[in-house]
Order: sequence, then C-alpha cells, then structure tokens
Amino acid sequence: MSASTPPVFSATDHLHMARALRLAERGAWTTRPNPMVGCVVAHGEEVVGEGWHVRAGEPHAEVLALQAAAGRAKGATAYVTLEPCAHTGRTGPCAHALIDAGVGRVVAAMRDPFPQVDGAGFDALREAGIEVASGLMEPQARALNRGFLSRIERGRPWVRVKLATSLDGRSALASGDSKWISCEASRADVMRWRARAGAIVTGAGTVLADDPALTVRLGDGETDRDFVPPLRVVLDPGLATTARGRVREGDAPTLYIHAPDAKATRGMSAQAAAVEVRAGRFDLHAVLRVLAERQVNEVQVEAGATLAGGFMEAGLVDELLLYVAPVLLGPEARPMFGGLDIDSMTQRMQLKIVETRRVGEDLRLLLQPVAAPA
Amino acid sequence: MSASTPPVFSATDHLHMARALRLAERGAWTTRPNPMVGCVVAHGEEVVGEGWHVRAGEPHAEVLALQAAAGRAKGATAYVTLEPCAHTGRTGPCAHALIDAGVGRVVAAMRDPFPQVDGAGFDALREAGIEVASGLMEPQARALNRGFLSRIERGRPWVRVKLATSLDGRSALASGDSKWISCEASRADVMRWRARAGAIVTGAGTVLADDPALTVRLGDGETDRDFVPPLRVVLDPGLATTARGRVREGDAPTLYIHAPDAKATRGMSAQAAAVEVRAGRFDLHAVLRVLAERQVNEVQVEAGATLAGGFMEAGLVDELLLYVAPVLLGPEARPMFGGLDIDSMTQRMQLKIVETRRVGEDLRLLLQPVAAPA
Repeated sequence: MSASTPPVFSATDHLHMARALRLAERGAWTTRPNPMVGCVVAHGEEVVGEGWHVRAGEPHAEVLALQAAAGRAKGATAYVTLEPCAHTGRTGPCAHALIDAGVGRVVAAMRDPFPQVDGAGFDALREAGIEVASGLMEPQARALNRGFLSRIERGRPWVRVKLATSLDGRSALASGDSKWISCEASRADVMRWRARAGAIVTGAGTVLADDPALTVRLGDGETDRDFVPPLRVVLDPGLATTARGRVREGDAPTLYIHAPDAKATRGMSAQAAAVEVRAGRFDLHAVLRVLAERQVNEVQVEAGATLAGGFMEAGLVDELLLYVAPVLLGPEARPMFGGLDIDSMTQRMQLKIVETRRVGEDLRLLLQPVAAPA
Repeated sequence: MSASTPPVFSATDHLHMARALRLAERGAWTTRPNPMVGCVVAHGEEVVGEGWHVRAGEPHAEVLALQAAAGRAKGATAYVTLEPCAHTGRTGPCAHALIDAGVGRVVAAMRDPFPQVDGAGFDALREAGIEVASGLMEPQARALNRGFLSRIERGRPWVRVKLATSLDGRSALASGDSKWISCEASRADVMRWRARAGAIVTGAGTVLADDPALTVRLGDGETDRDFVPPLRVVLDPGLATTARGRVREGDAPTLYIHAPDAKATRGMSAQAAAVEVRAGRFDLHAVLRVLAERQVNEVQVEAGATLAGGFMEAGLVDELLLYVAPVLLGPEARPMFGGLDIDSMTQRMQLKIVETRRVGEDLRLLLQPVAAPA
C-alpha cells in the first residue's frame, strides 16, 4: 500500500477495532499517566486473543493479547487502538512482541505521538515485513485518550470543568447554599469521572465554603484493588487553607498551588508549587504546565463560579460536564460562571453538545466549546 | 365483569389502543376545542377500520372507523381513546353508531369527564348488551388530551410556558438582545407546539421589545387546508400596545386583556376583556378563566421573564417547554424567570424532566413542576 492511498478497512476490521476500543476503556481508571490501549488478535472474524493495558509498569495490551492467543497469533491480524511502542520502557517494546509472535498484519487506530514512538513502532513492523494500516476509528481512539494526547501534543492536560447547576443556571443560592442541587445518582456519577482524572482542581474558596474531600468514592464492586487516587490540587494564593479541611485527609495526595511570595505553613506535609499571580488571579496556563510536568493527563475542575469562569475566560476548558437538576433557584441565586463579561451576542461563548444522558432525576450534559461564529 | 374487578387487557388490546392513540394525535392541530380521539375497529389482530376526529363539527373517530369497516364491524371490538359520546351535539351520538354497527365489545382508554358524557356513553353501550372495558393506556390518553381535560376538570386551560435560554439560564443579554439564542430548528419546532395550543399568551413588554407575530408558520406539507389559528392574547393592563405590532396582523384573532379601568382605543377591532389587576399585575387565575370561557384547552405562554415568572409563582405552570442553546451569556445577562423570591433550599421550585430531545444544535426539555419535598 502506498503512503498516499488511504487504507481500506472491512466490516470485520471495524468490529475488532470497536472491541479493542472497549477493552482499552477498561483501563480508564488505572492506566494513567499511560494511555489506555486495547488489543484484539484475530483470524478473520475469529478472535484468538485480547488484552488491555491495565496499569503503568505492567504489560501492554499487545503482550497480554498475544499471551491469550497462546501460539495462535501466527498469521493473525492484531488490532491495536494505538501504535505499538518501539522503545523499551518499563516493559519491552510491543512491536517486537508482535513480530516475534508472527502476526501477518497490524491495524492501528492511530499513530502514537509520544516522542519515543511517533511512527517508530509502525516502521519496525513494516521492516519485519508485516502489513500495517493505521487510522481505523481514529476519532474514537483520540476521544478515548484525549487527556494523554493533550499532554503530549499540547503540553497541558485536558481540562474538564464539572458543574452542578439548576435549570436556571445557578450553582448556589445567594447565601452560598448549594446542597441538594444535584441528585444522589449524579453525585455518584461524578466519582466515576474523578476516577479517570489525574488531578481534581479546586480553589481555596471552595475548600473554605464546602470542605470537599475530593476523593474518589466508588460503589461496591467498582473499586480496583490498588486504585491510584488522583492528585487533589488546591489553588490557594496565600496558602490560607493548608491547615484545615477534608482535602488533606485520606490517602490521596494533595498539592497546593500558591503565589511565589506565599509563606508555607511550618511543617506542612502536602506538596506545594508556586505559580505567578496577576491581579489576584493565577496564571492558569502556568498551573496546567505544573500539572503536565507531573504527568497529569486529565484535570477535573470542581470549583466555584469564579475559578470555573476563570478557566472558561482563559479558553482553557476542553469539556464541560454539567449536571442540570430540574429545579429553579431564582434570579437572586449565584451564576454558574463568574466573570464572562459579555455585552453583545458576538461575544457569547458557543459550545456544542457532545452527549446528553439522564442521571437519576438530573440531566447530564457533556459539552465542548467551539469557536464563536464571526 | 363486576365493577370492582379491574379489566384485563391482552397484548392485542394494547396494540390496537396504541394505534388508536397515534391516530388521535393526528388531530392535535385541528380538533380544538374538542378532544383528540382515535378509533380502531378490529377482529382479533385484524384491523377492519380506523379513524380519528379531525375537526370540531365534523364526524367523530368512531363514525369514521365504522364507515371504513364498511359492514365488517359486526362482532368486532372497537378501541377508542375516549368514552364514546352519548349526546347529540353537532354530530349524532357515537355510542348509538357503535350499537347500530353491531360491535361486540368496546375498549376505551378513559371515561370522558365532559358533563354531557361522563359515563353515559358506557351506560348506553352496556344497556345494548355490549361488553365495555375502560382504562387501557389511560395515562397516555390523559397526556394526549391534557388541555381538554384541564379545561373540563379544572375549569382552566393547561398552561405551557415556552422559553429559550442559554446554558447558563439566561433569556437575553442585559441589553435585552435575545436574537440567536435558539437555533433555526428550535424556532421551527416552537411552531408545532403553537399549532396545538388554543391560545398564545404574551405581555405588552414583549410586544414592544420583540414585536412577535405569534402566528403559526409551519413548513411545506405541514399546513392543513383550513387550519384554525390559535388566539393571540396580549396582557396589556393599560391597552398601551393596541395601535401597533405584528400581533395585530394576519388572519389569527387577537385578544387584549386589560385592566378594568383601561380605555380602549377608539375603533379598535381586536377583542378585549377586562381582568383585575393588583399591584400592577394581572390576576392570572382570572386570565385563565377568561380563556377557558373561550374554550381554550391549551395555553402557550411566550413572554419575558416577568410574565413567565408570574405564572410560575402563581403555581399555574403545568409544563415548561425549554429550548436550551449550548451557549453562555454570562452572569450579567437576564434571568429566565423574574420574581421567584427564593431564600432557602426548601423554597426551591422542583420540576421533573418529562422528555429530552436534541433539536438542531439545541436541547429541548419538557418539564413539569412537582410538589417540593417537605
């Protein structure tokens, strides 16, 4: 196949890649900072092995699938949701494992932009005489690993802002009371989104007002034996909240991001990082760089209207996870986003609805910002 | 069957009643002020005739279905979405038509609470030796005719408040600009809801600010040859807007509701009715009584935040038809409901989501208020 001819994929190819994507997603809560990867080894329609990457430092999807195939991989097609690695990290290169197993063809959803791979996996396979085709269900594969890809390609984590609002777009009453806005099913659902995030970000104001634990509390049977909890991040310019709060309790690590001139509390055990503050507000780009350096793929912002609005105004929101409760709080209640100085319709912030789902009595919307029309 | 034993309905019964309900709904834009009614005449699974009530003054569903059955109704079961009438209105009583046709059994979704029927239809059928069973898919039948049932049972129309808001619950910018909040598909969808309303209600403020026509403009192939346009109703205490506006143009009738002491414009051709005003606000219960007297089954309120909030505060909103555009207008923009003085969570207004649907780029929600938990 020449490089200029797009590869042609059969219905069977699609079937196996769809399966591989579902397998990959099983690692959503555990693979970080690695990408999720799934692999299916098949002869025609018959699957002879499958696997997915469970945890960084443990075997990759391809190795597990080849193990499962137990000698039946010879001449088979291997479907992988990401280009097989060509470098020896904590585990050996998957490209070599596929070559050694004698597979005849490798179908990948996408190239791995990670600098140590980035085409080298495909090259190694082709040099060994294996037919390689990439690009099958690539949009789905990119969506799956949007956090990992953001960190590698843009140098910053994917940012998801989670908000719970009333039908009339209010996050709390004027008094600050926000209890019971979203239903119990929504609160449980939030935990599953936290579980796939590398960091949960909040502000000092939320710590003082709501005292959230920001831990992942999953239902029975949902917890993994050794789930690595996401980093809890508190944006606290003056380190005013470090002495208190549930955000310091439990096994999850906590990172305080503070202004360069803030004095750390004596004997503070939590991690801390300094980020520039201008006009009382953090440089949120710099905050995200700090998190990318700590290999955070996906950030989930769970904060008040001011910080949520700050991310929105800075153009740093990649997706908005919105739980809308069918309740009215009235015009005096607090807005869902602070800031957002919009005087004319041309300044409105346009999003698109990616997914809608009923969660208990609430409505869950997943949205992504789009460029405003001229 | 004794009155105390609930009737048992077969799968075939459900099948035919579901069909009868779909037929009934075909009259949604044309039967008012009559209820929508559908009828299926069947022997077992075999349908031998079907019909639906198209227009007040024209034949009822049962008569049309019996005509279609053309002599094959003898011994058949007639499925009707509403109790057959027993009185001679503009058309003869349907109960007699069913008796004359020799049907063996009548299955109804519900009793007709209209005073001139209200069980008399069932009685007439039973006296003729016909087996009668009622209550099959009654919730669906009640939902279909919620406007008619509201007028007959509660003495007021069913009130639907239609609003278009941003994701952050705003109906317009601070400047009042509300253009482009909802997408074209949503604006077309609103027309189909107007078409089933007996009246479209707005306020003088909306007439002055937006100059809406409040007519039903349907797409090609959607218009009926002699569609009766809904009454346009302007709540205008001082009759300040009667001289102007698109709401006066076109074939649809217009009714101005005004304060008792307002002076009608000399030579004003539109209809007018006086309703008590207290502290500058109409008694909305009285407004609805005026409309019920004019045989309005369903009211669609298309007004600004103040009037919409007034209906909500008065507990007069039966359903909220909400078009949510995936756009943010910011905290300075106008709220979707005015008023709603809510200081604590116990005062919050609780609704339930009846239906969600994507309409173009927007999200359409149909909600109904529920009693707030204690």
